[in-house]
Amino acid sequence: MNDERYPGAFTYAAAGVNIDAASAALDRVRSKIHATFPGTGAARPIGHFGGFYRLNDDDDRLLVASADGIGTKLKLAILLGGIAHATVGADLVNHCTNDLLAVGARPLFFLDYVAMGELDPDIFARLVGGMADACRANGIAMIGGESAEMPGLYAPGDYDAAGFIVGELREAEIVDGQAVSSADLLIGIPSGGLQTNGFSFARAVLGLTGDAAHDRELLAEPVAGGNGESLGETLMAPHRSFLREVLPLARAGLVTGMAHITGGGLIDNVPRMLPDGLSALVDPAGWNVPPIFWHLVQKGDTRRAEYHRILNMGIGFVLSVRPADTDRVLNEVPGARVIGSVVPTGQDGMRVLGLD
Amino acid sequence: MNDERYPGAFTYAAAGVNIDAASAALDRVRSKIHATFPGTGAARPIGHFGGFYRLNDDDDRLLVASADGIGTKLKLAILLGGIAHATVGADLVNHCTNDLLAVGARPLFFLDYVAMGELDPDIFARLVGGMADACRANGIAMIGGESAEMPGLYAPGDYDAAGFIVGELREAEIVDGQAVSSADLLIGIPSGGLQTNGFSFARAVLGLTGDAAHDRELLAEPVAGGNGESLGETLMAPHRSFLREVLPLARAGLVTGMAHITGGGLIDNVPRMLPDGLSALVDPAGWNVPPIFWHLVQKGDTRRAEYHRILNMGIGFVLSVRPADTDRVLNEVPGARVIGSVVPTGQDGMRVLGLD
Repeated sequence: MNDERYPGAFTYAAAGVNIDAASAALDRVRSKIHATFPGTGAARPIGHFGGFYRLNDDDDRLLVASADGIGTKLKLAILLGGIAHATVGADLVNHCTNDLLAVGARPLFFLDYVAMGELDPDIFARLVGGMADACRANGIAMIGGESAEMPGLYAPGDYDAAGFIVGELREAEIVDGQAVSSADLLIGIPSGGLQTNGFSFARAVLGLTGDAAHDRELLAEPVAGGNGESLGETLMAPHRSFLREVLPLARAGLVTGMAHITGGGLIDNVPRMLPDGLSALVDPAGWNVPPIFWHLVQKGDTRRAEYHRILNMGIGFVLSVRPADTDRVLNEVPGARVIGSVVPTGQDGMRVLGLD
Repeated sequence: MNDERYPGAFTYAAAGVNIDAASAALDRVRSKIHATFPGTGAARPIGHFGGFYRLNDDDDRLLVASADGIGTKLKLAILLGGIAHATVGADLVNHCTNDLLAVGARPLFFLDYVAMGELDPDIFARLVGGMADACRANGIAMIGGESAEMPGLYAPGDYDAAGFIVGELREAEIVDGQAVSSADLLIGIPSGGLQTNGFSFARAVLGLTGDAAHDRELLAEPVAGGNGESLGETLMAPHRSFLREVLPLARAGLVTGMAHITGGGLIDNVPRMLPDGLSALVDPAGWNVPPIFWHLVQKGDTRRAEYHRILNMGIGFVLSVRPADTDRVLNEVPGARVIGSVVPTGQDGMRVLGLD
């Protein structure tokens, strides 16, 4: 699908991913899902970064759970092989960890699902080993999982993996944006790369064909404007965990809202951390966008409104912080920058300066 | 791979599924996985039907979690379409539920992972709707999930799905086989069909090619020895949940061990419910094997030792019960039958009469 204003521009839908369709499909089953809640400990409607469950009526402790996948970064790992399988295993754990973190929860345990056409013990050991190492780094117990051989569903060498995480918090520790006010500043934490989002787009705009020799050659090329690092190694940069830096700040009451910048980018994820009636104003001049993002955007001739939804553009996590606490938070999180502010626009959502 | 004793006989490995390879692959990462345990609440080594996590040192309550897939029953659902998508959604929930039940846990909440090449809202709504309906029937809250579009990984119309479940129990409610003794009887509960295991085998021995018209025609044929029901509808019979019948018996202390008969059949799953030094002696004359199983076994010319590992052969769940409690348990579970006994062989494992 070409953009009307910029002929030839590349959009996410053209790469085969339709965020709006996913949202519409979920709307069709939302009432059935919520019909499972009565008589259980389900504590909040679906749609947060994690789902909430109250163990006891007389206890203010809640469990929070989240499920995630790796997306088509997997295809790159499959193509590049070796240590890339461990990278996406760790990516999955860190993605799950950050989702729980975004509501203020401390992760407790993790389980995985791995499906292959035919089980490859080397790939499996690297992939699950990468998950286990990342779990240990985050203080999370990996207490189980499922591996499935599904001949006929996955092409030889292909696989998929999903992660499932459970954490906990006290009622008063929930960060759901209700504490955000219109004077707050937005602090961005560097992502260190695409994390696990935008890979269908990246593969499309770079012209990866699925032919291994062709694709490997293409991925060996340097990132435009970079320091000689290859496209492949840059795209495979790990999905960071923000747990160690951010959870202590949240538990100390220094953040009023949080967003993990995953599928949907800043555009879709920042509004999830704001209460009704408040908007975000983000200034892209507030941080340095790593060269890989400009490389992809220029290859795709992609509009700003689109690329801020497809890619995180260098911001992996966003905190909303009261002005008085800003210096302290900036000092405690390496690389953190003020990227915008919360404004009383009277409508939900966010605006990126210079986007309209 | 042909069996050496019965030339032409069909084995599971020939259908592309290698249970031993999966086990060996897991062995390679077991130490890395267990290295995530220190300092967390992880309460037992991996390998049970569910993973255990202790929330507090001063509380005897444990969480139990399990991850599962649907296996290649999915391919049949994709081929048959319509309500079959809801069936496999419910299968996934019931599979997860039974896994928790097998250790004595009451399920609390469920999350799903659904991956498609391109999101099909109709399939998604049926599949996730089937999950939600099954959650409600089991009293489980569906508190979240993840849907992924992965163009290039899944063929058009294909998808995969995984389920994650968390339950709870008190320390004293754990059923891990430590209470099993050599006088106990084994009670089998009917499965109502293949549940979600043996489908790669079934597809191979029936000669499904992946050509939709050919496969649909073949699946419209009647089950040999049946009452006219088609192969397709019989294979798509739902995976039963045993929660409502069995959990009250377990909580009343009437069962000493439990096994959910999934991948690996009676041969691999019954030993998981027994302590060291005890074996199971199962007599296949003890229950009526539904015609679909004989149909598949005869098509594959498959050895008994093999088919009791590939298929559940009509038994979905096994209870170990003290002789004095047997009548009461048989009266409370419709269709339950004594299928064998626990014997002091001095070695782990099980034996099916007439198998050697």
